This record gives sequence, C-alpha cells and structure tokens, in this order.
Amino acid sequence: MGSQGRQSRARQLRRRHAVAGQGGELALLAKIRTRAARANTSGLRLGIGDDCAVLRIHAGEELAVTTDLSIAGVHFRLDWHTPEEIGHRTLIRGLSDLAAMGARPVAAFLSLGLPRDLVQSPNRREPPWVERFLDGFFALAEAYGVPLAGGDLAESATPVADIVLTGAVRRGRSLLRSGARPGDRLYVSGDLGGGVAGLTRVAQLAAAARLSRTAESEPLCTRGKLEPLLQRYLYPKPRVSLGLWLARHSVATAAIDLSDGLSTDLAHLCEESGVAAEVDAAALPIHPDADLEQALHGGDDYELLFTASPSARVPLRVAGVPITCIGRILRRSRNRPLVTLIRAGSALPLAPGGWQHFS
Amino acid sequence: MGSQGRQSRARQLRRRHAVAGQGGELALLAKIRTRAARANTSGLRLGIGDDCAVLRIHAGEELAVTTDLSIAGVHFRLDWHTPEEIGHRTLIRGLSDLAAMGARPVAAFLSLGLPRDLVQSPNRREPPWVERFLDGFFALAEAYGVPLAGGDLAESATPVADIVLTGAVRRGRSLLRSGARPGDRLYVSGDLGGGVAGLTRVAQLAAAARLSRTAESEPLCTRGKLEPLLQRYLYPKPRVSLGLWLARHSVATAAIDLSDGLSTDLAHLCEESGVAAEVDAAALPIHPDADLEQALHGGDDYELLFTASPSARVPLRVAGVPITCIGRILRRSRNRPLVTLIRAGSALPLAPGGWQHFS
Repeated sequence: MGSQGRQSRARQLRRRHAVAGQGGELALLAKIRTRAARANTSGLRLGIGDDCAVLRIHAGEELAVTTDLSIAGVHFRLDWHTPEEIGHRTLIRGLSDLAAMGARPVAAFLSLGLPRDLVQSPNRREPPWVERFLDGFFALAEAYGVPLAGGDLAESATPVADIVLTGAVRRGRSLLRSGARPGDRLYVSGDLGGGVAGLTRVAQLAAAARLSRTAESEPLCTRGKLEPLLQRYLYPKPRVSLGLWLARHSVATAAIDLSDGLSTDLAHLCEESGVAAEVDAAALPIHPDADLEQALHGGDDYELLFTASPSARVPLRVAGVPITCIGRILRRSRNRPLVTLIRAGSALPLAPGGWQHFS
Repeated sequence: MGSQGRQSRARQLRRRHAVAGQGGELALLAKIRTRAARANTSGLRLGIGDDCAVLRIHAGEELAVTTDLSIAGVHFRLDWHTPEEIGHRTLIRGLSDLAAMGARPVAAFLSLGLPRDLVQSPNRREPPWVERFLDGFFALAEAYGVPLAGGDLAESATPVADIVLTGAVRRGRSLLRSGARPGDRLYVSGDLGGGVAGLTRVAQLAAAARLSRTAESEPLCTRGKLEPLLQRYLYPKPRVSLGLWLARHSVATAAIDLSDGLSTDLAHLCEESGVAAEVDAAALPIHPDADLEQALHGGDDYELLFTASPSARVPLRVAGVPITCIGRILRRSRNRPLVTLIRAGSALPLAPGGWQHFS
C-alpha cells in the first residue's frame, strides 16, 4: 500500500475539499433553506443555519419526539417509487407517530444520505432526484403546517432519509401505548389493507414497465392520474386531526399508529399495556381492493388504532375520518393468546405478521 | 420477470416477516431499551417503547435540537475505527452542537442502519459489532448524563448512524452564530489541529496493520493503550460545560463548534453575523503534534469558537479548558476577505478549507 493511497484515503476523512462548486452541499442547503423559510412557524424560534434549531412550546405543554429511518431497498425502491412519493413516505412516518401521541406538529428535521447522481441533475432540462424528493416532502409538510427546522446532508452509496418530528402536547395528555385496560373497546380509523394492496399493484406496474420499456433511460415510475388504490398507498394522510381530537377530549385510553400492520401494532399495544385483545374479523373495515389477510397483517396504512372505555362516546366519524369498533381489550392470562381473532364463530390466535429487520 | 420474483420483491416491502427470531430487531431493541433505562432522566417523561418519546423542560426554557448523519466511508471507516470509537464519534457530533448553543443536554435519539453482519455475532465468544458500538455510545452518554430516548433500527448495506440531540436553554440565551459584532474579540477553547493530526496517525496505523497482518480475520483496529494524540482524535470531549458557562454569564455574542475546521466554521459564523474576521496565526493554540495548516483547516477538533465584546471578562480557563484569544471581528466590506490571516506581519485571505459533500 503506497503512501499516495494512504494520503488520499486520509484526505477523504480529513474534510479538506473545496467549499465552492456547482451542485455541492452548500448549494443544495441554500435551496432547502429558502424553501423551508416559507413555512408558518409559531413554535420555531430559530431554523436552519445554526448549530441547533430552537423550538418554543406553550407553558403546560410537553414535547413529543420521534425518528424514523427510511432506506432504499427496505422502505422504498428507486425503481418503484417516484422521488415525490419517497419524499411523502419519508415524512408521513413521523407525522403518523405524532398523530398517535395526540401531538400538534411543531417542526421537522431531515437527514439525507444520497449518492452523488441523485443530487446532481442528469441534464439541464430535468431537476435532480433530490429536488423532486423535496417537492414531495414539502407538499406534505406545507399541508400540515410543519416547518423544516434542520437536518443534515451527506454522501452515501445507499440512499437513506432519517426524519425527526417534534410536536407539542398538553402535560399528561399524550396518547400512550400503555393505557389500555380490560373492558376497553378497540377502534380503528379509516380502512385497512389498502397500503399493502397498493404496494402489490405498484410492484406489478413496475414489472410490466420493465418488460415493455424500450430504452434504458425510460423511468419505470412514470404515472398518469393515480387510481384510488395507488393514491391510498402512495400518498397516505397522517391522522393528525384525529389524534388531536382524541387527546383534547380525553377519549382514548391508548393509541398506536398502524405502520407495521394491525397484528403487529396491536401486539405492541397489548405488550405495553399488559393486556390481551380480541379482534372481530367481521367488523374490520377492509379496503375495497384488499382482503382479510392484507387488512390483518399489511403495513403502510397509517391509520390510528386506539382504545376507549366502554362508557366513552366515540363518534362514527372524527375530522372526516370514519371510526370503527373492531374488538375489545381483555385481561392478560396464560390460557389466552396475546391477540385473538374471532372469525365465523371460532377464536384463533392472531400472531404478529409484520416486518422485523435483521430476522 | 416471473410472478414468483415479483411476489418476493413485493413481500420485501410488505413487512410480512416473522417477528420472533434470534438476533432480530426486537431482541436488539430490548437490549438497547434495558441499557437506556439506566440513565438518570429528569427531563425525559417517556422513553423508548411508544410512538414518540415525551420530554419536559422547565418554564422559561426553549428546546435546542440538532441532527448529525454519520456514514461509513465518509465520517468513519470500519477498517480504521473500532466500533466503540464510532459509537463515541456518532454521539459527540450532536453533543458538540448543543455545547455551541449553550444548551443543557436533555435526551438523545439514535437511528441505526446496519448490514446484517454487524448486528449478528460472528461466534459465541465475541459480541456483535453493534454491541461494541453501543458500548462506546453509552460510555459518552452516561458521562454527560444524556438518556437515550428513542430512535430507529433498519437493515442497510451502507452502515449509517443518525444522531439527534435535544437540549434546554433559557429563553433568548442560546449562543447563536449570528450575534458577532465588529470590534468583538475571537476566542477558541482547547487546542487546534489535533483532530486531523490524529486521523492521519490512524490512517498510518491502519495501513501498517494491513501490510503486516497474517490472517483475514485479524482486525485492523486493535489498539493497546492510546497515545495522547490518538486519545485526542478518537475520544474528543464535547465542551458542554463551557457552553453552559458562556450562556449563563452572557459572555459570548456568538458561538459555533469546530467540527469542519477553523477556516470553514469561522466563515459560517461571519456569514451568519454579516461580519468579517481577522485571525492572528501566532496566537493560535496549535496541538503539539499538529502544524499551522492542520490547525487552520483540520476538522474533528470539537472545540468551541466564540466571540465576546472587548469589555467582557473572559477567563483564561473555563471548566478546566484553556481559552485563547485568536483574533477579532471586523466590519464586512467589499475590499476585505471574509476571513483574513495575519502571519509574520502580512495579511492574507483565509479561504474555507473544510469538507463539503457532493462537490
């Protein structure tokens, strides 16, 4: 190993590159900063440009914080999803966590690790991938009034995006996973299974495009007007207003968002609350394009699952979103599975069918 | 492309894997949760295990938030740094940003994307890479009383770690980059250039080990007792106490941490404050193993650079750390570079020599 090679590798970590240069980190950062500055920001005292952002919340509030890592090939695919769709997906994961706590969004932070060819434009006519990603990101952020307050940028062979969401919630009013009690009713917002049914449809479209395309340069992910199933999967809406309503009216005893699938997320809620649960298959609000299996185990629905006392008055619809009672909370016991599915009169254990990394 | 292949790729994103399984995400999460629970956590109301963590700060305080992305091959190298060193490096980047704001650390969040072989143990005798990474991470976190409040785990071909630090600071007392005024004196803590000099030494050691090793399995990064230069580079200390002192006594008009190198970080401070600066080369506290070039442009020092009014009383030492006056702030003007270096009686423009991604 020559001294030249050693020197050049040392230099790679030595941070001695020129700071000027077209399309570099500072140019991209300046664009992001300009765009972020448009947001309406009552809780953000200091945004992008310092060592930290500074947030202010009201007296009597606590701060909710969540982080979600999205990785190419695991959480999204460059040949299945458009950059705008990936920007949307990155942000909704954090917004959905805030919704599940009943928190009001205050500010978002975005760390992006990208290969160079996603940051630089292939030609003068097309914007680089990262700008289209930011279009999808900011469209959702602006719809929910969430300013981008900071983050980080770096070069990475594997595209990664880590999203941090901060939110405010009245002291002691957070919707926790741990508050469910035997006898509580179990509710879900919207419908189930549309996420995974949409994902399957996107996989089919990508495969068909791959078979039929004529040139290497033709993108797989071109889409016309989205059919409702694709809209549901590619642009899910975070249930922020529902979460705020549940916290403000002290209706929910526990809550979690359905990102990994009903069977997995309900198991988490039961574990944290020290209870068991029973789900009535016939009561499940299954998406018209999905089946029972997909409704039970499919991820990416971003609906809220919550529990409420049997005496609580839970409306059929909150903030425009249908609410359905799908079961009840039971005492934990050795003779009973954590989650039971009641289907056609018989009771079966419902094992978590969701994703786990490294397994 | 057969239906089988399409199905299996769809399944990859469909999150339908078994949740049980040795060495999986839940097992690792359980270990992290147990370890995190040891921390003393006055500001942390709810830690790992829910959709969000919940933080509480005192009345009259604001929250400082920073995120820093660390990527293998860019911010660290698996063949140069031990897992413990990478854990330390990941966390100090965030702690140093809090120090530069004068904030009291409240809680940390860690998102880890790792290839499977870093999560699973190669054999029964050795802990997996990730456990040693966490040893380095928690050693620093515990030394500074910072609880780990949340994060995320996922599989990634490129190892990545995103660190989020939250801290509390009295309203309006944050040390900003934008507060420097013409006439202010420029100060730096500790000494400069040790970071990059240590990095060069590590690169030499790694190359020597690569030449002399006899078996593929022998790690490059084995180290005995660390010489002081390596200690300085591999285990830098965040200047949290100094930052708190500067904020509490309203001494600093502006501050930034030296992570990218003096020339780059001073340029940031001048840009944000709308001023210019002059650095006296003879006054620089250069690390005994470094040279002037390294002190001016080298990264990874994690010292604080701050400005103070000429009438402010700045001690020679704060919280055990030496403080040195290295120059002064000037009015911005067309006829003057952003930063000037005074050396042997002549004035030269000092261009930023730090790292920029994607350039």
